[in-house]
Amino acid sequence: MQWYFVAALLTVLTSSQGILTTLSQSNGEYKYDYATVPFLAEIFKLAVSSLLLWRECQKSPLPKMTTEWKTVALFPIPSVIYLIHNNVQFATLTYVDTSTYQIMGNLKIVTTGLLFRMFLGRRLSNLQWIAIVLLAVGTTTSQVRGCGETSCESLFSAPIQGYMFGVLSACLSALAGIYTEFLMKKNNDSLYWQNMQLYTFGTLFNMARLLVDDFRGGFENGPWWQRIFNGYTITTWMVVLNLGSTGLLVSWLMKHADNIVKVYSTSMAMLLTMILSLFLFNFKPTLQLFLGIIICMMSLHMYFAPPNMLLDMPLTVKPEEEKLIEVSVDRRPHS
Amino acid sequence: MQWYFVAALLTVLTSSQGILTTLSQSNGEYKYDYATVPFLAEIFKLAVSSLLLWRECQKSPLPKMTTEWKTVALFPIPSVIYLIHNNVQFATLTYVDTSTYQIMGNLKIVTTGLLFRMFLGRRLSNLQWIAIVLLAVGTTTSQVRGCGETSCESLFSAPIQGYMFGVLSACLSALAGIYTEFLMKKNNDSLYWQNMQLYTFGTLFNMARLLVDDFRGGFENGPWWQRIFNGYTITTWMVVLNLGSTGLLVSWLMKHADNIVKVYSTSMAMLLTMILSLFLFNFKPTLQLFLGIIICMMSLHMYFAPPNMLLDMPLTVKPEEEKLIEVSVDRRPHS
Repeated sequence: MQWYFVAALLTVLTSSQGILTTLSQSNGEYKYDYATVPFLAEIFKLAVSSLLLWRECQKSPLPKMTTEWKTVALFPIPSVIYLIHNNVQFATLTYVDTSTYQIMGNLKIVTTGLLFRMFLGRRLSNLQWIAIVLLAVGTTTSQVRGCGETSCESLFSAPIQGYMFGVLSACLSALAGIYTEFLMKKNNDSLYWQNMQLYTFGTLFNMARLLVDDFRGGFENGPWWQRIFNGYTITTWMVVLNLGSTGLLVSWLMKHADNIVKVYSTSMAMLLTMILSLFLFNFKPTLQLFLGIIICMMSLHMYFAPPNMLLDMPLTVKPEEEKLIEVSVDRRPHS
Repeated sequence: MQWYFVAALLTVLTSSQGILTTLSQSNGEYKYDYATVPFLAEIFKLAVSSLLLWRECQKSPLPKMTTEWKTVALFPIPSVIYLIHNNVQFATLTYVDTSTYQIMGNLKIVTTGLLFRMFLGRRLSNLQWIAIVLLAVGTTTSQVRGCGETSCESLFSAPIQGYMFGVLSACLSALAGIYTEFLMKKNNDSLYWQNMQLYTFGTLFNMARLLVDDFRGGFENGPWWQRIFNGYTITTWMVVLNLGSTGLLVSWLMKHADNIVKVYSTSMAMLLTMILSLFLFNFKPTLQLFLGIIICMMSLHMYFAPPNMLLDMPLTVKPEEEKLIEVSVDRRPHS
C-alpha cells in the first residue's frame, strides 16, 4: 500500500470524525458519556490488530515479535504523554478561550518538525521547513476570527501563562507522535504486534480514566461499566469505529511513513471539515478559509514535490549544468 | 548600485507615501487638490532626469539617445494605459466597496507574473510561481477584515461585473508595468533620456487631466494653474517629492531589475505601512497582519534565495549526487 493513499484516507476519516461527532449530539449536547468513545475505540483497535496478527501467524515466515520486558516497557509511554498532555490542555484552557486555544494548536505542526529533527535526527531541507511553517500559517489563517463574530477578544490579550501552557501543549502533542514513530521504527517487529502492545496500554489508561471520573463523581450514576452504552445511537457507534480506524491508519503511517505525513493529513482534514461544514451546517464561506486552503496546498506541493520539478529553470541554466540537474533528480526523502 | 538596495529604498519610500498622504490631510480631508500631486511629481521627475542627462552629456562617451519618431512614439503608451486603468478603476468602484477593491488589487501580483512570462518571455521556476501566488495570498491575508469591523459585507457578494472589472484592472495595472519594462530594456539608451520621454508624456497627460477636471467643474474655482498650490503645506510638498522619488526608483528598477522585484518592493511596503500605522495611528495589531507578514517573508525568501540553499538535503542525497549539486549552485536568474 502506498503511503499517500493511507494519508488521503486518514484525511477523509479525520474529517468525518469531526462531522460525525457534531452529528452525534442532540441539540448541541452529548446524550452519552464522551469518555467512553476513546475507550471503545482502543478496544476496537486492539481487536482488529489481534485478528490481523493471528492471520499473520498462520502464514510463514512468522511475524517478528520482541517480547523482552525492556521493549514492552516502552509502550505505555505514549499513553503517559497523552495523560500529561490532557492535563496541560485543561490548564491552558483556564487561561485562554477555546478559540485562542485552537489557534495555538497549530503550533503543533512546527513543534513536530522540530522534534522530528531533534529526536529522530531526520533532516529537512530549507524549503521543507518553509513548507512546514506555511502549513501552520495556512491552518491558522483559515481560523482567523472574521467580521461579525461574537467573541472579538484579541489573540494577544491572554495572560502569559496561557501562551506558555499553549507552547508546552504543542510540544507534548508533538512528542507523543515523535515517540510513537520512534517506537514503531525501532525494530522490525510486526506492526500488529506493536499495535497490540500500544492499544493494550491505551485500553488500560482509558479504563483508568473512566474509573477516575467515577470516583470524582462519587459513583452517582453507578460504575462506568454499567452505563457504558447509555445514550448510544448508531451515529455514536460510527464515531467509535471512525476514531478506531483513524488510530489504525496513524499507526500504519508511523511505521511506513512519518509524523510529517500525519501532520499534513490531519491539517488537510481540518480544512476539509471546514469545507464540508459549509454545505452540511450552512456555514458561510470566508476569505480566510479560501486563503488558508491555497497556502496549505502550496505547502503540500512544496514539501512533497520532487526538487527538480520545483526548480526547473531552463533559461537561466547553462547547458552543462542542466545535464547535472537531470542526474540529481528525485532527492526527496523516501517518507 | 545593487538592485536590492534600490528595491529596499523603494519599499521605504512607497510606505512613507501612504503615511505622508494620510498626514497631509486635515481632519480626514484634503485641503488641496490631490490631482495636482501626480502632475507636480511628473515635473519633478522630468527636472531630475534632465539634470542627470545633462551631467551625462558633459562626460564622454556621450549617452546613447534614440530620437527616431518610431521609438519616441512608444513612450506615451504607459500614460494611455494608466488613463484607461483609472477609468476601469472608477467603473469597478461602482460595483464593489473600497475594501473589496483593495483585496482584488492583490491580483495584480499574479497578473504581473503572467504578463512577465507571456510578453517578456521570462521563465519562472515552479517554486517562483508558488512564491508569487503566496505573495498575493500574504498581502490579502493581512487585509482580511477582522473581528469587530464596521462593514461586514462579504467579499463574495458583489455583482459579477465588479469582479470582471477587478480582473481587468489588475491586468491593465500589470500591463503598464510590463510595457514600461519592455520600453526601458528595448535598447541601450540612457536611462535619463528614456525617463525624459516617459515623463514628458506623463506631464502632458496629467496636465490634460487637470484641464478635464476644470471643464467638468465648469471652471468654478478658476483654471488649475491659478490654484495649483492652494492649501499646500510642507507635508504636501513632501508627498510630491516622495511620489516623484518612488517614480524614479521604479524607473531604475525597470531598467536594471524587473517587474517582479518592483512587485515585491511595493507589497513589502504595504506591510511596512501597516506596521508603522500600528505605532503612528494607534491601530491594533491583528493576527491576520502577523500571518500575512510571515507568508510574504517566506515568499520573498523562496523567490530570491539561491536554489541550493533552499534544497540542501545532505542526508537523502547519495554521495555522487551531492557533488553534482555543488556544481549546479546558483542557478538563480540574475535579475
